Amino acid sequence: MEPESNPLTDRIDALHAVLESGSVKKAQRMLNALHPAEIGHVIESLPPPQRQLLWELLDPNIEGEALLYLHDDVRDDILSRMSSDRILAAAESLDSDDLAALIRDLPSTITWEVLNSLDQQRRERLEISLAYPEDSAGALVNSDTVSVRPEVTLDVVMRFLRRYKDGLPNLTDNLIVVNRAGRYLGVLYLSDLLTHDPDESVAEAMTLDVQPILATTNAREVASRFEAHDLVSAPVIDDQGQVLGRITVDDVMDLIREEAEHQFMGQAGLSETEDMFAPVLLSARRRALWLGVNLLTAFLAAWVIGRFEATIQQIVALAVLMPVVASMGGIAGTQTLTLAIRGIAIGQLSVKNIRWLLGKEMAVALLNSLIWSLVVAGIAFLWFGSRDIALIIAVAIALNLLVATFTGALLPLLLRRLGIDPALAGGVILTTVTDVVGFMAFLGLATLFLL
Amino acid sequence: MEPESNPLTDRIDALHAVLESGSVKKAQRMLNALHPAEIGHVIESLPPPQRQLLWELLDPNIEGEALLYLHDDVRDDILSRMSSDRILAAAESLDSDDLAALIRDLPSTITWEVLNSLDQQRRERLEISLAYPEDSAGALVNSDTVSVRPEVTLDVVMRFLRRYKDGLPNLTDNLIVVNRAGRYLGVLYLSDLLTHDPDESVAEAMTLDVQPILATTNAREVASRFEAHDLVSAPVIDDQGQVLGRITVDDVMDLIREEAEHQFMGQAGLSETEDMFAPVLLSARRRALWLGVNLLTAFLAAWVIGRFEATIQQIVALAVLMPVVASMGGIAGTQTLTLAIRGIAIGQLSVKNIRWLLGKEMAVALLNSLIWSLVVAGIAFLWFGSRDIALIIAVAIALNLLVATFTGALLPLLLRRLGIDPALAGGVILTTVTDVVGFMAFLGLATLFLL
Repeated sequence: MEPESNPLTDRIDALHAVLESGSVKKAQRMLNALHPAEIGHVIESLPPPQRQLLWELLDPNIEGEALLYLHDDVRDDILSRMSSDRILAAAESLDSDDLAALIRDLPSTITWEVLNSLDQQRRERLEISLAYPEDSAGALVNSDTVSVRPEVTLDVVMRFLRRYKDGLPNLTDNLIVVNRAGRYLGVLYLSDLLTHDPDESVAEAMTLDVQPILATTNAREVASRFEAHDLVSAPVIDDQGQVLGRITVDDVMDLIREEAEHQFMGQAGLSETEDMFAPVLLSARRRALWLGVNLLTAFLAAWVIGRFEATIQQIVALAVLMPVVASMGGIAGTQTLTLAIRGIAIGQLSVKNIRWLLGKEMAVALLNSLIWSLVVAGIAFLWFGSRDIALIIAVAIALNLLVATFTGALLPLLLRRLGIDPALAGGVILTTVTDVVGFMAFLGLATLFLL
Repeated sequence: MEPESNPLTDRIDALHAVLESGSVKKAQRMLNALHPAEIGHVIESLPPPQRQLLWELLDPNIEGEALLYLHDDVRDDILSRMSSDRILAAAESLDSDDLAALIRDLPSTITWEVLNSLDQQRRERLEISLAYPEDSAGALVNSDTVSVRPEVTLDVVMRFLRRYKDGLPNLTDNLIVVNRAGRYLGVLYLSDLLTHDPDESVAEAMTLDVQPILATTNAREVASRFEAHDLVSAPVIDDQGQVLGRITVDDVMDLIREEAEHQFMGQAGLSETEDMFAPVLLSARRRALWLGVNLLTAFLAAWVIGRFEATIQQIVALAVLMPVVASMGGIAGTQTLTLAIRGIAIGQLSVKNIRWLLGKEMAVALLNSLIWSLVVAGIAFLWFGSRDIALIIAVAIALNLLVATFTGALLPLLLRRLGIDPALAGGVILTTVTDVVGFMAFLGLATLFLL
C-alpha cells in the first residue's frame, strides 16, 4: 500500500513538478516518452487547465491511442477542443475496434468526416463494429485477424507469415481457420504451429473446441469466458458463422475494470466515467440529483418521526436513541445487500439459490440481533434508568435488523427483475427502509407501551 | 443485464435442478464436463451441504485446478475436509505459481508432506515462489518458461520447439532469452520468430525494450504494467538479473478482480474472500464486529443529541428534522470519499494534486449547499411555520455539507498515510463525522438562538 512502490505515480509526480517549474520543453520530452496508457493516466491526474496544456505538447502520432485510455468524460472534453483535422489524424492511427469506440463519442458531423476519410476496407470494417450495440461482443471486434485455410500445410502457413514484415498483429496467439466462404472452422494456435510437424495440414493441427463468440453475445459473458478459459484472443462470428474478427484480452481487462468501477462508484450515485477534475458546474449538477433523491428519503423518515411528536415531547430519551436503531439496521442490511450484489455480478446468485442465502442471512441476523439488542438495551438502561425504554429499544433493533437483512437479500434480484441497476439504487432504497422501519418500530412501540 | 444472456448461469441452474432431482450420475457427468473455473463457480454458488456432495463427485485429476478458482474461505473449508492423500494428488497437477498460492492456505503439516512429495526441481521452484511476499511479483511467478540463447538461429529455435510434443506452456507469447548464466537478456516473441528470416539469430530478432519485472515489485504495479502495455506474459527476475520465471495475464486478471472486490466489499466491512454461503456462526461473528464498531459511532451521535435534551423537549420539531441534516452530509461526503478512494486506487490522486480535488469538491459542495439548504429551509418553514427553524436548518445543512466534503476529500490520503485501508475504514469514519457535526450544528445553533 505504500505510495513509494508505484513508479508510475513517481513519474506522474515528476511530470507535475516539471510542469510547475514551467520548463515546457522538458515536460514535452517526458510526456512523449510515455506509453499512451500512461499518457492517458497523467492527463487524467491533472486538473483541466494543465490537461489542455499537456495535450498541446503531445506528439500527434500518439494522440489517437492516448484518447482511448481516457475515461469518457475526459475524452469528450478533450475532443471538443480539438480541430476536426487533428481528430481525423488521430483516428487514422487506430484499429477498427478502437476507432469504433472513439467514433461513438464524436459529434455526428465529425463522424461523417472520419468515415469519409477512410479507405473502403477500413470503412466497411468500422461499420461492422458500429452495427452492434456498445455492450456486445460485436462492438469489441477487431478486424486485424490472420486467417488461414484448412487444407494448406503448416510449412506453407509459416512461409505465408514471413510476409508480415512488421510482425503479426498485436496479441495474436492463434490464426483463424476459415473455409472458402469465410465461415469459421477452428483456430490454429501459434504454439501448435510451432510444435507440430511442418508437413501436417492446418486441418490436422488446428483446435476445434474453441467456441467462437457470437457478435450479439453480451460483453459480460465475453469477459467471463476469457477469465474461465484464460484466453488471449477469441474469434467472433455473425449469426451466419462468418468470421467478423476477434476480441483481445486487453479489451477484456478494460471491461472488467469498468464493470468493477461501475459497481463501486454506483453506490455513491456516481458514474464510472466520472472525471475527478470535472468542471464544478457539471459535477454540482450531477451530485445535486443524488442529493435530491436522498432528500426525499430523508424527509420520508422525518415524516415518520413527525407522527410521534407527542411521544417524543414526553420522553425525550427516544429522540436521543432513535438514530441508533436506524443506523444498526442500515449497517446490517448493507452487508447483506453488498453480498447479494456481488453474488449477482459474478453470476453466483440467482432465483434458484436465493432462498439459501436468505435463510443463512436471516440466521446470522437473528444471532446478531440477539447480541446487539441486549448490548444496546443495557446501555440504554444505564443511561436513562428505564427498564421500559431498554426493552423497547431491544425489540426495535431486533426487528429492524431482521427487516433490513430480508430487504438486503431480496432487493438486488428484485431490482434487476425490474430492470433497475442494484448497484445504483440498492443502497438508497435499503437505507430508506431501515430508517422508516427503525423509527416507526421504536417510536411506535414507545407510543403503545410507554404513554 | 438480462439473466438470460449468461449461459454459465444457465448451466449452473441446470446442475442445481439435476442435483435436486437426485440423479447423481447425471450431475457427475455434467460437473466433470465443465472447465475448472466453471467448477469453482458452481461450487461457490451452492450451499455447503451440496458443495461437499459435488466435490466428492469431482474427477480427482481436476480437483487441484478447481481449488484454485475458489475464494479463500470456500477453499479452506473444502481443504479441511480432504484427506492429505487427496490433497497431495491435487497438488501434483499444478503449476508452481498455482501450487504456491494453494500451499499458503494449507495446514503446515500438510505443507511439509506436499513439499516432500515433489521432485527436487519442482520443490526448488516452489520455494522461490514462497520466498516472496503474497502481494509481490515473486509470488505470482510461474516457472514454466521456455528459454533460448541469443546466438542460435531462429531455425534452430523452431526445431527445438518441435520437441514440445504437448504444445508450449499455456499463454506463451514469447521465449525468454538468457545468457549462459541464466541472466535476462530480452524476449523473443513467437510473432517475431514466425515472421523473421529463419537464418537470423535470436539476438537479431529479439526485443530488448521489454522491462523484466523485479520479483519484489508490488502486485498492483504488475497489474498496471500489464494493462498499460497489453502484455500476455512478462519475465520476472531476481535482484541479480537471474530469470525466475514469468507472470501470465490470467493471474493479472484475477488480481484486478480481487482488488476491485476488496474495494467494493470493504465498504460494508466485508472481506473480498467472504463466502456467500459461509457457516452462520462464522458469518455472525465477522458481522458482529462491524456492527459493534458502528454501534460505538451511533452512540457517539446519540451522546451528542443527549447534550441537547432540554432543547429538544422545548422544540420537538428539532428531533423530527435532525436526521435530514445528518443524512445530507453523509451523502455529499460519501460521494467525495468514493471519488478520492478510486483516485488513489488507480494511482491518479496523491498529495501533489489533492489540493485541486479539494478545491473543486468544496466549490461543488458550496453550490449544492446553497441549493439544498434553501430547499430544506422552504420545506421546514412550510411544515413547522417557523422562520427561525428554517434559517437554522439551512445553516446547519450548509455547514455539514462543507465539513463532509472536506473530510471525504482528505480522509483517504490521511488513512493511507497512517497505514489504514481507506476502502474499509473511510465510510465509518465519514458517517461518524457527518452525524456528529450534523446533530451538533443543528441542535447547537437551535440552543443558542431559539431558546
